[in-house]
Amino acid sequence: MPIQTFIAFDADDTLWPNQPHFDHVELQLLRLLAPYADEPTINARLYDVQRANMQLFGYGAKSFMLSMIETTIQLSGGAVVGGEIQQILDLGKELLRFPIEPLPDVVEVLTELKLRGHQLLVLTKGDLFDQESKLARSGLGDFFDYVEIVSEKNEPTYQRLFTRLEATPANFVMIGNSLKSDILPVARLGYPAVHVPYHANWIHEHVPAEQLAEVNFHTVTALREVLDYVR
Amino acid sequence: MPIQTFIAFDADDTLWPNQPHFDHVELQLLRLLAPYADEPTINARLYDVQRANMQLFGYGAKSFMLSMIETTIQLSGGAVVGGEIQQILDLGKELLRFPIEPLPDVVEVLTELKLRGHQLLVLTKGDLFDQESKLARSGLGDFFDYVEIVSEKNEPTYQRLFTRLEATPANFVMIGNSLKSDILPVARLGYPAVHVPYHANWIHEHVPAEQLAEVNFHTVTALREVLDYVR
Repeated sequence: MPIQTFIAFDADDTLWPNQPHFDHVELQLLRLLAPYADEPTINARLYDVQRANMQLFGYGAKSFMLSMIETTIQLSGGAVVGGEIQQILDLGKELLRFPIEPLPDVVEVLTELKLRGHQLLVLTKGDLFDQESKLARSGLGDFFDYVEIVSEKNEPTYQRLFTRLEATPANFVMIGNSLKSDILPVARLGYPAVHVPYHANWIHEHVPAEQLAEVNFHTVTALREVLDYVR
Repeated sequence: MPIQTFIAFDADDTLWPNQPHFDHVELQLLRLLAPYADEPTINARLYDVQRANMQLFGYGAKSFMLSMIETTIQLSGGAVVGGEIQQILDLGKELLRFPIEPLPDVVEVLTELKLRGHQLLVLTKGDLFDQESKLARSGLGDFFDYVEIVSEKNEPTYQRLFTRLEATPANFVMIGNSLKSDILPVARLGYPAVHVPYHANWIHEHVPAEQLAEVNFHTVTALREVLDYVR
């Protein structure tokens, strides 16, 4: 393995837990909407509304709030009143200020990689304001030489990053929990990627197995194994 | 005037109209809320809610939608129902897809500056996804060597940009309509800034006259005058 100059980390569910907070809010939404629909109906409708709004809203907590509200209006047949909508707003605001605790190994791994002289990057998609706030709340900001917040992590996004950094497959590695956003586009461009699975996954990030079979990437069971992979 | 390598443009209300679309939506909100409150009350409450949510939501259309919904719940005493909230969601969605028409002079000025060999930047604050979409819809994307979408345009933001570009007051100029975001922080750092006033202004961007008296900047009445200012 050649020496990596640039080590890029995904943020949500790689550096800190994120999906569990969304799952928790979704669970409270299910409770709130119990008078209007059963759980599978709510889940299916929320997913449909999110997908329909995606190209207009993008990712993130504010988009999720707006889609929760729209789902509630639809499932209640318009009968929902202000107080219930306010509860959804308050749930959503929790997503914008929950404390950010780094996941196990994160501080140790970043400290060691920094000591070894690597350039560390955060590469995350979602809402600019929200992601900046989470990085600040995490206390991890000083580890990173570059912070990139993008609207979508696909091949063109990575290609632009590689061009700007003058990064090659010999001096770059991407580390993250999302096969769709962190692994597949990087591996397809021929760059090394390390998958660190996380227990909670967003259905939107699911990747069909046959797409994964076409590319090479490395998987670790704990983040600290990255220290052996990256020399 | 020395040769500017970097010419940075604000986007909203400098390259294309934006505030008029927000003003139009706000007018429709006033109509929708007429049963609950009079115009000054609605305006004051909306501004208060927006200000309270600013540090959690940041700028942009999605933040505005959420604040419009919260204002409506408050002014209706919680009596608002789903159909009215859906109308607000639909108004907000208009803000995320209105056609982007460049303001007068914009295409000519960008074409000429590009011909002269300058590096052109867009520097805009707000919602990442929304701002990227507006730049794409404007058809102006190819003029720009750098696109920077930031959460706040203040002195630290500009200082980071200057460091990264290795820009000096001799080779950089900022052009924009907002005294607060485009002119004051740039001028305070001793860099040249050109104010292009726009007829519609957001109250949040207001700057007290005494703060303006302390700094130097240039004002033009039409964007094409920038071609004389920048050699």
